[in-house]
Amino acid sequence: MQQCGPSSPSCSTSDCFPLGTLNTAACGSETSAEPQKREPAGLFRMRPIVIFYGFYLLCFGLGVACVVCVYLWNSKWRGGFAWDGSPLQFNWHPVLMVTGLVVVYGNGAVLYRIPLTWGQNKLPWKLLHAALMLLALVLSIVGLCAVFDFHNAQKTPNLYSIHSWIGIAATALFAMQWVAGMAGFLLPCSPISLRKRLKPMHVWLGGSILTLSIAACISGINEKLFFVLKGINMTQPYSALPPEALLGNSLGVLIIAFGLVVLKILSTREWQRPDSRPEDMAYTPLLQEENE
Amino acid sequence: MQQCGPSSPSCSTSDCFPLGTLNTAACGSETSAEPQKREPAGLFRMRPIVIFYGFYLLCFGLGVACVVCVYLWNSKWRGGFAWDGSPLQFNWHPVLMVTGLVVVYGNGAVLYRIPLTWGQNKLPWKLLHAALMLLALVLSIVGLCAVFDFHNAQKTPNLYSIHSWIGIAATALFAMQWVAGMAGFLLPCSPISLRKRLKPMHVWLGGSILTLSIAACISGINEKLFFVLKGINMTQPYSALPPEALLGNSLGVLIIAFGLVVLKILSTREWQRPDSRPEDMAYTPLLQEENE
Repeated sequence: MQQCGPSSPSCSTSDCFPLGTLNTAACGSETSAEPQKREPAGLFRMRPIVIFYGFYLLCFGLGVACVVCVYLWNSKWRGGFAWDGSPLQFNWHPVLMVTGLVVVYGNGAVLYRIPLTWGQNKLPWKLLHAALMLLALVLSIVGLCAVFDFHNAQKTPNLYSIHSWIGIAATALFAMQWVAGMAGFLLPCSPISLRKRLKPMHVWLGGSILTLSIAACISGINEKLFFVLKGINMTQPYSALPPEALLGNSLGVLIIAFGLVVLKILSTREWQRPDSRPEDMAYTPLLQEENE
Repeated sequence: MQQCGPSSPSCSTSDCFPLGTLNTAACGSETSAEPQKREPAGLFRMRPIVIFYGFYLLCFGLGVACVVCVYLWNSKWRGGFAWDGSPLQFNWHPVLMVTGLVVVYGNGAVLYRIPLTWGQNKLPWKLLHAALMLLALVLSIVGLCAVFDFHNAQKTPNLYSIHSWIGIAATALFAMQWVAGMAGFLLPCSPISLRKRLKPMHVWLGGSILTLSIAACISGINEKLFFVLKGINMTQPYSALPPEALLGNSLGVLIIAFGLVVLKILSTREWQRPDSRPEDMAYTPLLQEENE
């Protein structure tokens, strides 16, 4: 059987990934009218995997850096954490939103792209994807509770700024996406035709939620730094770029970089999990079609 | 010859679009080992085109709404326009950035996805794409000049907020992207191998620049509304959601909706221009390979 490579015109790159070790690279037709070249094995076929893992490590490293940065900012510069209606309660908001709605969410989204998972039953990875997304959702909801509670204690209105509108829209869409994903892709009774129709919407909405959460984070960091760095009481204003401003801005840059790397991983067809493989079909009785 | 449709496994959806009128739907192999179903013509084959034009009209309508909204906000609520270092000069900044870096940019990005353009020589569309992007870039640069000039006249530092960092990064990347795109895809001397390598990076960076500009716009609207709606001098604060706040927030929602529709159009494989068509090859002597 012919082997797939970039020069193989009968293979869609979404269906084929040159993974020799997983023995999933075979596709196309032996009787194809087009003459096929056999790609050299070894280094050439490992290249997309190596590039993927480079991006994946970058994604993971940027995610860790985001969490460390937002935690440091709120613990060292903003006085730490509490749940008593004081500004210390507000500090949970950026930490939980960045950790949940950006970092855990982004890592959950790229889970299926890891080639290591492709040779195995998809069900445990599906459950891990759902569990990571549930963790991200819970962190985000607790992060929203922190700021609502703080506003209520301070008699400040909720949900008036565009930052809050975008943030609440991202979380609401995320909750709907999680419920629809659970019902559509994990419940044994959901029909295959529904899964096929749901999947492109699920993937697109997933990227859109990340875009919304990035916009909410950047506007939130910008707003917070203008609020707290006013240049009164012997402190430097935001415009003088004191260390706290540099840390907050760096957090924004890290979030943007993390988001763009996640969107790059999600949108690169070569890195998508192959759509159908015989070994996955063994699990279809439980979930009808594991790859939908 | 077999015709392509969603049920045709030897056709990548990026290569095939069921456009009967353009006669470009033929692909795959007559001798394929897989048995093929012939898709019914007519309504079924028109469906993706109708859905595309629905999204395209939405994209166009949202773009017009963004421009009208940002213009109204700055002309009616913020006092209009001038180029004299006063706050009226600042008002050019949001109008030009939203018009250039979001609306014209987004419309330029989706140009190749319009099926109407596929049956024709690609060169005029390539030139229109480059011209629209140049217009978007010029508007963005003039929009940046407006705010730099205003800051300098008011003795306000430049480029300290995360909003400004993201915005300047988006414009700088856009300028680099335009120059690289011009050199890589329009200069006759650029080799086909370079075009092939450049294209995925060009497409990904294009979407990333739009994501950056959306984040910059949302943080800018948020910042501006907090700055001007302070609840002093008989005016209502932002938190009371006066009409100006509602207009500004609506602009943010429109920008987000426009951006997500553009990213949806760009990421949907069914709507991508077919990669190779014999009628386009007639133009290769000038640009080597029109479809790269």
